[in-house]
Amino acid sequence: MSTTKFLLPEDRIPTTWYNVVSDLPKPLPPMLHPVTREPVTEADLGPLFPPELIEQEFSTRTDVDIPGAVLDVYRQWRPAPLVRARRLERALDTPARIYFKYEGVSPAGSHKPNTAVPQAYYNKKAGVERLTTETGAGQWGSSLALACSYFGLVCEVYMVKVSYQQKPYRRALMETFGATVNASPSELTASGRAALAADPNATGSLGLAISEAAEAAINSGGKAKYALGSVLNHVLMHQTIIGQEAVLQMELAEDYPDVVIGAAGGGSNFGGLALPFLREQLRGGRSVRAIAVEPSSCPSLTQGTYEYDFGDTAGLTPLAKMHSLGHDFVPPSIHAGGLRYHGMSPIVSALKDLDYLEARAVPQTACFEAGVTFARNEGIVPAPESTHAVRVAIDEALACRESGESKSILFTLSGHGHFDMQAYLDYFAGKLED
Amino acid sequence: MSTTKFLLPEDRIPTTWYNVVSDLPKPLPPMLHPVTREPVTEADLGPLFPPELIEQEFSTRTDVDIPGAVLDVYRQWRPAPLVRARRLERALDTPARIYFKYEGVSPAGSHKPNTAVPQAYYNKKAGVERLTTETGAGQWGSSLALACSYFGLVCEVYMVKVSYQQKPYRRALMETFGATVNASPSELTASGRAALAADPNATGSLGLAISEAAEAAINSGGKAKYALGSVLNHVLMHQTIIGQEAVLQMELAEDYPDVVIGAAGGGSNFGGLALPFLREQLRGGRSVRAIAVEPSSCPSLTQGTYEYDFGDTAGLTPLAKMHSLGHDFVPPSIHAGGLRYHGMSPIVSALKDLDYLEARAVPQTACFEAGVTFARNEGIVPAPESTHAVRVAIDEALACRESGESKSILFTLSGHGHFDMQAYLDYFAGKLED
Repeated sequence: MSTTKFLLPEDRIPTTWYNVVSDLPKPLPPMLHPVTREPVTEADLGPLFPPELIEQEFSTRTDVDIPGAVLDVYRQWRPAPLVRARRLERALDTPARIYFKYEGVSPAGSHKPNTAVPQAYYNKKAGVERLTTETGAGQWGSSLALACSYFGLVCEVYMVKVSYQQKPYRRALMETFGATVNASPSELTASGRAALAADPNATGSLGLAISEAAEAAINSGGKAKYALGSVLNHVLMHQTIIGQEAVLQMELAEDYPDVVIGAAGGGSNFGGLALPFLREQLRGGRSVRAIAVEPSSCPSLTQGTYEYDFGDTAGLTPLAKMHSLGHDFVPPSIHAGGLRYHGMSPIVSALKDLDYLEARAVPQTACFEAGVTFARNEGIVPAPESTHAVRVAIDEALACRESGESKSILFTLSGHGHFDMQAYLDYFAGKLED
Repeated sequence: MSTTKFLLPEDRIPTTWYNVVSDLPKPLPPMLHPVTREPVTEADLGPLFPPELIEQEFSTRTDVDIPGAVLDVYRQWRPAPLVRARRLERALDTPARIYFKYEGVSPAGSHKPNTAVPQAYYNKKAGVERLTTETGAGQWGSSLALACSYFGLVCEVYMVKVSYQQKPYRRALMETFGATVNASPSELTASGRAALAADPNATGSLGLAISEAAEAAINSGGKAKYALGSVLNHVLMHQTIIGQEAVLQMELAEDYPDVVIGAAGGGSNFGGLALPFLREQLRGGRSVRAIAVEPSSCPSLTQGTYEYDFGDTAGLTPLAKMHSLGHDFVPPSIHAGGLRYHGMSPIVSALKDLDYLEARAVPQTACFEAGVTFARNEGIVPAPESTHAVRVAIDEALACRESGESKSILFTLSGHGHFDMQAYLDYFAGKLED
């Protein structure tokens, strides 16, 4: 009858991040320099990231200590709850057991602060004064703004102009946390000025905002560095706090997932949940089905090719071997802004290539339908990105109803939809296109 | 250095509500019938409320059992965290210890579900099919919509038309939870039709929305009842779950508040925190300063008179003895919509009259300034209503800096501001008036 939370005591919060790279059956293909096409070195990344994050990016150590100052911040909202969705199970009339790990309890409302906080911390420690970043819908920008406010760093966000204009409340959240938000393209960088010279009415793109943010860091004389919210190895590693907690909470629930599910844009949310469960399997132990869910309008894992590609549109970043739709692919403007990325993290891509995980692409209308079902039964309005995981979790539970199997299904509810209610209004009004 | 959460184990959640009426030094003056001016009877309230809520409204029992089905829902987000605001203390350079009880963790984002859930439960139990209510800014409407979705009740919300138009996202939240939202004045009730006949462009008022919601319940042939989100005795009683948890959490913190602070519109948030602490004092034990904070533009406790007045504008509801600015008082349209009520709960009013609590009125600009300071240090953006408590908590902490005293200060952060970011944008733009 009741929804059951599995709360981990604060003193059982994991104190290390899990680095899956150490358990991969073969080494991860290195990133390549955009000009020389040689493997990227730690020195190459110096202008962008502080030393300890670069070290983590290349690290093959299995367990990396979480600094005490980062744990202190994590403890503001972590351990995040793991909830048995009993009302949803009943509504679906399924024998399946459905669990969700809820990351919307963070002050920014998503899983993104799990990496924003250590990134801000290591930059502060390295004497950096300012962090630059890009943001589309604003989930990442608001998380980095929050993290910077904790550590006394200046935060400078380049927000895709069309979002800047259409999502004033996300911008207001960043500003409330003390960040400076610039509409991109801006007059502040050469890339921005070039774009405006070409088209004074340009509404921007994530690729261009990345260029502006990186340029601002590189030209800061060492005072500023750049921060990225997904894709990279160190980002996925920081997010394993999600799955490590979930492993312990499933023990509290005296259960183990048959399937773990997460929405995948750059891959850090999905990886954050799935990697600590896949660890067992990578070591020859208990196996689990891991399903990465992507929008059918931006299907990098299901339709992309596994090859070297640039991380940004302009081809300024290193190349990574990843499932990609091509760095010039422009996804349609679906509401799940966090899933509109042409590529996929190298770690998730490699695991897909090695058949350690499944990928599924779903259209957005079916996702919002699942999101509303979830909200009416569990009381939480999912972010548009998170509805993708909800959709597949519900589909798996309905399959159990057909087959009569009582599977254990676990998904990440990566964030709440409080800043995305226009998407729900559009869904109710029948305005969404698939 | 760190922010410290005091989490109560789930099995220590209080299982009874505290009814302060039993501890008052003299009986609470009865409500009076609007026509006869005789004390209201339980039968008089029958068309509006189910039997068990009416019984609670008149009850003088001290501890009232929380039904198991209500506790099951409470457990989705309760016990709510009590947090030591160490970063804020450091930013203010104060020797004071500042704690806040955070009610924004509920799925609707405020303390309102604490009473919406039992109200929905008792109505369902009594065979009611539909609940009607009014809402201004939308906090209460979304909480009742949530509660109705849990118990399979139809929820019908009359939302003041100006808010309906200006706050589409709050409306979207209610609709996502499955509620029907009508702009008030509507064509659905005689009161609404009369208002539209008088002025086809009428933008509505909370008083008129109350009339429409009550009328819809009364004319439903018993299928629908009405629900109110503050003011009444049973509502304040339900909210004492806040303060009862806080009493236990302050024990975990090995501290006791010198002062407890809450924003007061109808009084249920403030009362919810303060009453369980005042219980000791009412019984001759340990005393505490309790400060109810109201907007200087709607100062019922600091400027109103303590006399019998109607609960609504039209004079259709019973009269209650309360601090009131007059039932025809129309407060300016400040952003803290939840504090725009002409009266104050009879319980809080009586305690004020008996000198058990202080009241303070603060202008909204100073409140938003405090809200931004809080957000930048503690990471949570407070609802406009909650910034009133933050303001006074900060003022008390600054007074400690002056005096060198190390007081213990506790306030309710009654909700987050995710649906109120326009207010912050207006504040940053210098558009707010006091």
